[in-house]
Amino acid sequence: MAAESPRRVLIVGAGFGGLTAARALARARVEVTLVDQHSHHLFQPLLYQLACGGLSPSECASPIRGALQRSPNVRVLMAGATGLDAQARVVILDRGERLPYDSLIVACGAETSYFGHDEWGRHTFGLKTLSDAVALRNRIYGAFEEAERAADVGERERWLTFVVVGGGPTGVELAGQLAIISRHTMKGYYRSCEPRQARVILLDAGSRPVAAFSERLSDKVSGYLGELGVKVHEGARVTTIDAHGVRFELDGSEQRIDARTVVWGAGVQAAGFTGVVAEATGAERDRAGRLGVGPENALAGHPEISVIGDAASLEGPGGRPLPGLATVAIQQARHVARGIRAGAPGARGAFRYLDKGALAVVGRGKAVCEFRGHDLSGRAAFFMYLTVHMYYLSGGGPGHRLKVLIDWISARTGNPQDQVIDGTLASIEAPPTRATA
Amino acid sequence: MAAESPRRVLIVGAGFGGLTAARALARARVEVTLVDQHSHHLFQPLLYQLACGGLSPSECASPIRGALQRSPNVRVLMAGATGLDAQARVVILDRGERLPYDSLIVACGAETSYFGHDEWGRHTFGLKTLSDAVALRNRIYGAFEEAERAADVGERERWLTFVVVGGGPTGVELAGQLAIISRHTMKGYYRSCEPRQARVILLDAGSRPVAAFSERLSDKVSGYLGELGVKVHEGARVTTIDAHGVRFELDGSEQRIDARTVVWGAGVQAAGFTGVVAEATGAERDRAGRLGVGPENALAGHPEISVIGDAASLEGPGGRPLPGLATVAIQQARHVARGIRAGAPGARGAFRYLDKGALAVVGRGKAVCEFRGHDLSGRAAFFMYLTVHMYYLSGGGPGHRLKVLIDWISARTGNPQDQVIDGTLASIEAPPTRATA
Repeated sequence: MAAESPRRVLIVGAGFGGLTAARALARARVEVTLVDQHSHHLFQPLLYQLACGGLSPSECASPIRGALQRSPNVRVLMAGATGLDAQARVVILDRGERLPYDSLIVACGAETSYFGHDEWGRHTFGLKTLSDAVALRNRIYGAFEEAERAADVGERERWLTFVVVGGGPTGVELAGQLAIISRHTMKGYYRSCEPRQARVILLDAGSRPVAAFSERLSDKVSGYLGELGVKVHEGARVTTIDAHGVRFELDGSEQRIDARTVVWGAGVQAAGFTGVVAEATGAERDRAGRLGVGPENALAGHPEISVIGDAASLEGPGGRPLPGLATVAIQQARHVARGIRAGAPGARGAFRYLDKGALAVVGRGKAVCEFRGHDLSGRAAFFMYLTVHMYYLSGGGPGHRLKVLIDWISARTGNPQDQVIDGTLASIEAPPTRATA
Repeated sequence: MAAESPRRVLIVGAGFGGLTAARALARARVEVTLVDQHSHHLFQPLLYQLACGGLSPSECASPIRGALQRSPNVRVLMAGATGLDAQARVVILDRGERLPYDSLIVACGAETSYFGHDEWGRHTFGLKTLSDAVALRNRIYGAFEEAERAADVGERERWLTFVVVGGGPTGVELAGQLAIISRHTMKGYYRSCEPRQARVILLDAGSRPVAAFSERLSDKVSGYLGELGVKVHEGARVTTIDAHGVRFELDGSEQRIDARTVVWGAGVQAAGFTGVVAEATGAERDRAGRLGVGPENALAGHPEISVIGDAASLEGPGGRPLPGLATVAIQQARHVARGIRAGAPGARGAFRYLDKGALAVVGRGKAVCEFRGHDLSGRAAFFMYLTVHMYYLSGGGPGHRLKVLIDWISARTGNPQDQVIDGTLASIEAPPTRATA
């Protein structure tokens, strides 16, 4: 570390954690490089609305450069990080460029995981990236087009059956919005098919939806989903997914649902760069691929490598792992940046998570919210959800937030603003292909 | 034609002509089927803004079904029309479905033409479909990312060079907006590359841009483009386009521009279905593939087959062919629909085009406008352009129009709202592949 030249901070990933770290280091006496495969920062909590046509891509994503326009000490590179030389303190990019660092912040986030069944990825739609959401939207609105054109009743029913795997917030919110679309949005659109007859089925491996919430709130969510017409199967263990539908075990017997559209919201794993880091440093990863870090968010023996957000596995109070929430990543990013600003290679002192609660929304005025032991449901939780999401929505300024708010509310009441699908029927069969690293 | 059952009107294409015809026949005593490959109606005049990030896809396109929601006698099918049995009066769809008709309205529009050099399509970006525009946007914003990452100066310059082929309104408007983006939008975005150094070059085969306008307005447009920093080459005849740039003849000598991005706005031809119609009926097509029609917009010997918009070749007053404008298609559609409503198989009486003028816009407050011999330029033409486009913008209601207006003005002043690109650098090399029929 030369005494003269400013220290070099390299951040991998521009999600909530990485972008927050870059902003917190703007105008500090360090040279920051932020590397991300995409040119946009994604507001993942609203991705299900993009998939359902409630929001446009530009309402869920904003250019990373726009957010850092006035931070001359931050350089942004749209590139994949594929290698690490921990001894030389160099990250290697996908075209071989070598980026030396004094401090490395690993904030590469998580990607869809099929629990070892990668072949399922060919027949399901994930919901982690902008491309995922756009592909799913094309499929959802395309499915109704196919149903209208279907030659026989069986084929029509298969196109009108939507299976969502996973009972977490993403699965629950998506299933709810799918039900709203089919019940309300498409009134009068079709002559042969009846969108109201669409079936939305949620398969949850656990015993109750949104299990991170209290039992009372889980029950609320179950009730909301029922009111919207979503069929929920608890304790359903998926065994096969192919082009024609999904097979699963339920109460000891095997069942099958014929469906053209299966959405996978069941599992995530830390993104590929965590594997690179583990190999280069010998760090441990948990079952979900997350790197184990000490209380200061740093890898053991590498105080200059901090890992934050979904890439990190860190125990919170009571020994429970911290949840995969934006607020965790943001707080960790600020904690690490504070240490670096003060001259340390990473965070100074142990990270303490300040619980900001958790939220999920199912339908019009139907939401649940949990905050330090207190819980809330119904309309009050719904407005809490709105407020919090508008607050955290990055980029674009107040006009942008207002536009998103209006469009989001329209979508909730069954009038999504962006039902445009792109591509022809010929391409609708093609499953999404994704490669994230 | 059974006396009892309502007559069947089949419309191929949901552009300005086809959609207007369907609306004009809504609630008439006919059964209408509207066939289009896409589920959306495209507002083509603003497509260049979608490509430049000024508008979202949903602001340039609206669901066809939404526009016909309250027209129970109109059925919409998202499908390609691939065959015609003119004797049996049946159109055949791409999956073999047979649609019988009593009246057929061919409104399939135009698609990009490379004047016999289809290989150029692999290395250029067209601007006729929503996919075209999205692909071009990914390329434009991706090109600046590539320039930032480029290893040497030559490579950086190639990424910062944009060639637009074609001096019609599309080419002129796109070149102008590209200049605005590089000069204004990206201020402070990059550390290594300087977007202001981007070169925008317009290659026009003719002797002046927007040649459909008067010479005075062409001069105005040339002046506007110059002020924005667009380099215009008149009389440039393109001879080769490959992955590295474009070669062209100018004043007798061959020149070459190294550029990663070449946009093709030079030629269109009537869509593929016009060929099907010509083969089935023996109708004549002109060099641009347009079907020759009589003064009643019908094919000779086939009063039940009307051809409108860009699919038709019809002489206007003075023997000059009618221009390829939305207003022509809309007026023809209304004319044909009026005849059908009155019980005829097609239009009754000769079509007369009511000149609504022509408009083009180049930059902030820089527009030209021609209306029945009068011409207008500058700010007045700019506001005329705005008013007319907002008036014709289909779907979405007043709130939608307002949103488009605000976003369009923001883009004109260098603040495009939707700069989000999708995909990774790895895919940026891939040229757009399109298949329209």
